[in-house]
Amino acid sequence: MNAQPPDQPTTPTLDLARFAAMHAVSRAPGSPSAAALAEARRAFLNSFGCMLGGADDPAVDLLWSALQPHAGAPAARLFGRGQRTDALTAALVNGYSSNILDFDDTHLATVIHPGPVCLSAVLAIAEAGPDGRANGIPGLTGAKLLDAFLIGMEVACRLGVAIGHGHYARGWHITGTCGVVGAAVATGRLLGLDTVKMAHAIGIAATSATGLGEMMGGMSKSYNIARAGREGLNAALIAATGFTSSLRAIEAPRGFAVVLADGFDEDRLTGSLGERWEAALDTYKPYPCGIVLHPLIDGCLQVAAQSGAPAAAIERVEVKVHPLVMVLTGRTDPKDGLESKLSFAHACAVALADRSAGVDQFTDARAVDPVIAALRTRIHPVVDESLGTDQSAVTLMLADGQRFEARVEHATGSVVNPMSDAALDAKFIALATRTLGADAARTLCTMCRGIDDLDDLGPLFAHAAGGG
Amino acid sequence: MNAQPPDQPTTPTLDLARFAAMHAVSRAPGSPSAAALAEARRAFLNSFGCMLGGADDPAVDLLWSALQPHAGAPAARLFGRGQRTDALTAALVNGYSSNILDFDDTHLATVIHPGPVCLSAVLAIAEAGPDGRANGIPGLTGAKLLDAFLIGMEVACRLGVAIGHGHYARGWHITGTCGVVGAAVATGRLLGLDTVKMAHAIGIAATSATGLGEMMGGMSKSYNIARAGREGLNAALIAATGFTSSLRAIEAPRGFAVVLADGFDEDRLTGSLGERWEAALDTYKPYPCGIVLHPLIDGCLQVAAQSGAPAAAIERVEVKVHPLVMVLTGRTDPKDGLESKLSFAHACAVALADRSAGVDQFTDARAVDPVIAALRTRIHPVVDESLGTDQSAVTLMLADGQRFEARVEHATGSVVNPMSDAALDAKFIALATRTLGADAARTLCTMCRGIDDLDDLGPLFAHAAGGG
Repeated sequence: MNAQPPDQPTTPTLDLARFAAMHAVSRAPGSPSAAALAEARRAFLNSFGCMLGGADDPAVDLLWSALQPHAGAPAARLFGRGQRTDALTAALVNGYSSNILDFDDTHLATVIHPGPVCLSAVLAIAEAGPDGRANGIPGLTGAKLLDAFLIGMEVACRLGVAIGHGHYARGWHITGTCGVVGAAVATGRLLGLDTVKMAHAIGIAATSATGLGEMMGGMSKSYNIARAGREGLNAALIAATGFTSSLRAIEAPRGFAVVLADGFDEDRLTGSLGERWEAALDTYKPYPCGIVLHPLIDGCLQVAAQSGAPAAAIERVEVKVHPLVMVLTGRTDPKDGLESKLSFAHACAVALADRSAGVDQFTDARAVDPVIAALRTRIHPVVDESLGTDQSAVTLMLADGQRFEARVEHATGSVVNPMSDAALDAKFIALATRTLGADAARTLCTMCRGIDDLDDLGPLFAHAAGGG
Repeated sequence: MNAQPPDQPTTPTLDLARFAAMHAVSRAPGSPSAAALAEARRAFLNSFGCMLGGADDPAVDLLWSALQPHAGAPAARLFGRGQRTDALTAALVNGYSSNILDFDDTHLATVIHPGPVCLSAVLAIAEAGPDGRANGIPGLTGAKLLDAFLIGMEVACRLGVAIGHGHYARGWHITGTCGVVGAAVATGRLLGLDTVKMAHAIGIAATSATGLGEMMGGMSKSYNIARAGREGLNAALIAATGFTSSLRAIEAPRGFAVVLADGFDEDRLTGSLGERWEAALDTYKPYPCGIVLHPLIDGCLQVAAQSGAPAAAIERVEVKVHPLVMVLTGRTDPKDGLESKLSFAHACAVALADRSAGVDQFTDARAVDPVIAALRTRIHPVVDESLGTDQSAVTLMLADGQRFEARVEHATGSVVNPMSDAALDAKFIALATRTLGADAARTLCTMCRGIDDLDDLGPLFAHAAGGG
């Protein structure tokens, strides 16, 4: 942290702002930020892959058709779509694409997806530049872009940790509410905001923070994330002019932490900034559906491989689950792809029938497939309070009387059992191939892996264009 | 209300949507909507005047300088500024201008300013049109524009009444949170949304609703209102494509009324729609500052007129006030114009010294004027629980021992003592003259008064352009 002149008052909001504006992210091996940077590289890759994989979703077409007539000059790409628009609209549309597949990174302690909000915002302004003429930001390198992305993730996650679980429990979509502040500081850093302007950017973002949990499982869920990216960038652009908000926007009596939550833990918000990194705890989904379903899918894939049985031979499946599974993903009869992502029965059924749980398993078509629908009725959940959220136990019973069992101690993609770099690369390439083709997907994967060494971001943007 | 097919489920959100999409606003004398329409005409005039009067504020320049590089084709005017931009940016900037002088209409039961949010949104899309090419909306007349404006005001105010005072008390800036839904239905009506699309527009707006009370007294206060107008229009444009949200966005367990408030009163939200009109209770500020200060200003103007004494001759002023005055406007030493609008001491001092309390009394220069600053220290408030929010009692003591007293039973601009049409016209002309000149201001006033008879909105927009 930077020294604070003794005559200058400070506040939690200013402390966050100073970190965001001034912290020099060390790349020295063994430094506290080394692990965080390593995770930021993985989150960057994962979020970019999700953005590219989701870019051709029909909901993205609807969003773009509504906004295109009112959008600005073509300065920033809609990655994977072969289109360009202004930076603010690009942050919105790319942010939407990044989340629509439900395949994001997740900071498990808060359930925030820091990647899509921060990435969509930083890429848009990095390409469009503050003058909106596709001139980029002078002197911006891949390393500086990654630093800004990391700082944005860190601020979003710290805010989420600091305000505690009551916020989410009240019904807030926490990636929307905390993400907008992360996007503001990430883009504010790229725009070179000083500490005071950064604090005002945080304030403008804080008074733009929203997103209802009611939107989960529908088209507007990803809109919460999309809007957070755009409003964060909007806040940074406005603050850059000298427009002001409040230097106490987080902690004031009518500020973010009191109005949207029940106060905050100051140490969790601003303690050991630059030493302790929440961003280092980011995780990645191996399956594009509600994260609490992942241990069930792991277990179902295991028993399906053991048995080798087709769906028709399956008589009954018992799955022991953490209580949250039924709260968050209790749907038994999803009507479309979006609903299927929040259905324990659907997740188990496709894993058993298809021996896979990828993007193609959570489509509208798969949600109404009669074989899958029938198999869903044979999945029997048993809530087991002794299980962790990354644990499950699955028992498969075949019509011929055979039984197969699997117990999952730590689901793939959990903190203890993370996705490997190779698995993340494969996930990225599979997603990016959907809109870029395999060659560009592989090239882009290599470029993202070497983001720290990119002096010119132009080729990165060009390879991700799509629409070819 | 329209008949509901018996096989179609309904919800409070759908009921609101049906009213917004389908209610035919009657102009028959004596019909329940006649009084509401009369008030909508006054609110239209007042909001337009505030927009024109605030358009040259330096904060508007900052906002525009940040957004212009990323804005779309010049399809909608920034009224009073001689500039054009896209509809969404126009809704934002015009909404900001409308509120920056703190001279709005106020629905007293909720403290919502329904006018600026709804007016900025409807004017922007009415001029730009859904195709963003300044083609307007086919068939749109002044009467239809006024109907949409009225419906937007009504929905915003009903939502505020239904969620109760706890929402504001928690720290929400209620014009931001409820206003966005009003702007969505007002513009959704202009775009011809059917009931279901209107419900989705309400849902998208509800998940965009925000605005912190912490921003009061600073530049970002009006940003809350500006953003509500833009996000409401954004919601309607997106919903028009078939993009969906939730048909229960207001009432669901993780919906607007539960997440941002503590539930809602269904009868206050949707009871007697089209019969009982909250919009008919809108009021207008005679002075551009916190509304709780208005009875004090009335009283100070009275004793100043009685005494005829200059500021230097005033020894002591005692003002008896409702408790809220000190809670909301307790500042004794404001540092700039924005802070002065929330200072009981400043409001009394300028009324006594200048015998006026207009836009020129709440400027940065007046806030730091030494004569005013000295007089502020001689204003002594006494909280009196027996007073209503529209009451005050003022005692003026001169250095020569003379005393003058005034008691205000109902402040100018309250429901019981409303501003007359003539006073509103004068207010409009004074405000509009600031950016349009006196001739255009008078012409525009006449056009607004005859809004119901305008078949072509083009001349209205042209006369309000400014920048000439």
